[in-house]
Amino acid sequence: MAGVFVVFEGGDGVGKSTQTALLADWARALGREVLVTLEPGGSPIGEVLRDLVLNPAWGDVSPRAEALMYAADKAQHVYEVIRPALDRGALVISDRYVDSLLAYQGAGRDLDPDRVEQIARWATGDLLPDLTVVLDLDPAQGLATIEEKDRLEDAGHDVHLRARQAFLALAARDPEHYLVLPARLPVAELADRIRARLASLLSGPAGTVEP
Amino acid sequence: MAGVFVVFEGGDGVGKSTQTALLADWARALGREVLVTLEPGGSPIGEVLRDLVLNPAWGDVSPRAEALMYAADKAQHVYEVIRPALDRGALVISDRYVDSLLAYQGAGRDLDPDRVEQIARWATGDLLPDLTVVLDLDPAQGLATIEEKDRLEDAGHDVHLRARQAFLALAARDPEHYLVLPARLPVAELADRIRARLASLLSGPAGTVEP
Repeated sequence: MAGVFVVFEGGDGVGKSTQTALLADWARALGREVLVTLEPGGSPIGEVLRDLVLNPAWGDVSPRAEALMYAADKAQHVYEVIRPALDRGALVISDRYVDSLLAYQGAGRDLDPDRVEQIARWATGDLLPDLTVVLDLDPAQGLATIEEKDRLEDAGHDVHLRARQAFLALAARDPEHYLVLPARLPVAELADRIRARLASLLSGPAGTVEP
Repeated sequence: MAGVFVVFEGGDGVGKSTQTALLADWARALGREVLVTLEPGGSPIGEVLRDLVLNPAWGDVSPRAEALMYAADKAQHVYEVIRPALDRGALVISDRYVDSLLAYQGAGRDLDPDRVEQIARWATGDLLPDLTVVLDLDPAQGLATIEEKDRLEDAGHDVHLRARQAFLALAARDPEHYLVLPARLPVAELADRIRARLASLLSGPAGTVEP
């Protein structure tokens, strides 16, 4: 059975964790091995990098260093966690992936977006998700639900507005691999729509497991 | 007075630290502000990254993640340490810089060297040393002087042979900004030859300090 790679993207506080848990339960009930993971921080090295990029105690971090640490987290995550699980035929669900780097560091800060995208694609060895679910919400509503903000959450409102536009633009570029849903739909309705989109991928004829 | 950026490159155990200290003493006696630093690890974030790339306890690190962490270390080092010191007119002496990344990760491992170079140049904002001193030695002789090896030192002999060739090739590409010296010359003779090469840069007419 072929592995399936699903990513949730969107701002903070949009409900990615809730939908991840519901999707994982459903896939496990279908008999699937499920691996739930996240970026940054989905590997032991990634946990250290997560602190470096998100903990305000590190002070003034160079935007380029930040983008490169996010990219390094992705490289290790794919190498150590995601790729081996896909090779076993698992469903891998990641809370954030390359699009978050493009949306926050490429579109949200003053870096060349094309260069950031090149670096992120190289980091992951061009591994693309089978489906990216964008939970779309006005950033002001999403952030209001979070009490203690890390550095990303505490960035200017503009950063989050530009990130939202970037997620939507990435989805529009490749509709076959994206599902954009309004994050404020009822939880059960969101879960149903995500399952409907994934049903053929998860229960279809077995594909070829990559060597 | 314009800042001056000098880098020592070469394998482990070739005497970079000794020559760095001698050069720093000499420049201070000339009345220069001198900043001695190193890569990886020349900033607080860099110290964490240094452990991630060099401590064998982290286990199987993806080659791409490793190259990206080295690049992030450089980005933060230039941003937080090197560039501000150069702007103050200091002499900055770094034990390793971009060439080490190119020599060990680009030439020494199975990554595309051009891509690694692009990433390293982007990381540093294309800041180039005024002079890179390559202390050249057969790797077998250099490594023999080191007792406890970290992951880089413990890499296969081929990696160090290829790195040596890479340092020499980089120097040959741009002789105006490189000084290649046989590392086994007497310490005092090496110091004299480095001073002779730097004298005009350090005591010449003041250049323009970059804004």
